[in-house]
Amino acid sequence: MAHQTVGRPRPGLPDDPRAEVAEPTPACPVEVALAALRGRWTTLVIRELLGGEHSYSGLRAALRGLSDKVLSDRLAHLVEAGVLERRRETGVPPRTRYRLTPHGERLGPVLQALWDWGADSPAAVSGRA
Amino acid sequence: MAHQTVGRPRPGLPDDPRAEVAEPTPACPVEVALAALRGRWTTLVIRELLGGEHSYSGLRAALRGLSDKVLSDRLAHLVEAGVLERRRETGVPPRTRYRLTPHGERLGPVLQALWDWGADSPAAVSGRA
Repeated sequence: MAHQTVGRPRPGLPDDPRAEVAEPTPACPVEVALAALRGRWTTLVIRELLGGEHSYSGLRAALRGLSDKVLSDRLAHLVEAGVLERRRETGVPPRTRYRLTPHGERLGPVLQALWDWGADSPAAVSGRA
Repeated sequence: MAHQTVGRPRPGLPDDPRAEVAEPTPACPVEVALAALRGRWTTLVIRELLGGEHSYSGLRAALRGLSDKVLSDRLAHLVEAGVLERRRETGVPPRTRYRLTPHGERLGPVLQALWDWGADSPAAVSGRA
């Protein structure tokens, strides 16, 4: 619902009532996107899969500091958010493979926009090795 | 530092060693950007200021559910992140005004990219009023 005091035009903001919410709501598209990216390691898991599909063990090998518990949590979170799909391959041993959904692939430009902004930040420059 | 197992090319990722980190680091530009946006109400405060500068009391009026403590915290966080600048106006009573820095203005397209992705998410569609 639009709040009366926030109803004035804001150049560059979407023409959508959800752009005018007066308090945080999980239905706000910005919150939906930030919720999908939330959690330590989440963006690194997405980064790995932007390079192509992976088996569970391939992800474990690529992100060695990541525990099984956290990797499983992150993968379940990203499947739930519509970013990833999992596929069980029959075989001995059976393998589980993960890949980005078409919606998940569209996180590429979003991460790029975040990257570009962050790379230009004083915090990134001072933190750079 | 690039990790050997993550050194293969990933189409669309920046040609920067920071794109190849093997574990989460606060110096990663994506993390810098997500850290700036972190916290309930943060993106709504930025949204208000994308429409132009505001006094502290103007922000309070626009975001009525936001307490003084949380607003002060969010403003200090965004000043620290290089997103906002504050200016004290002499007068009776003195007023404090906030506006986006040029770097903060560049969050407009970043929030738009997050919006566009989130608006297209199953979670946003199902959560939509």
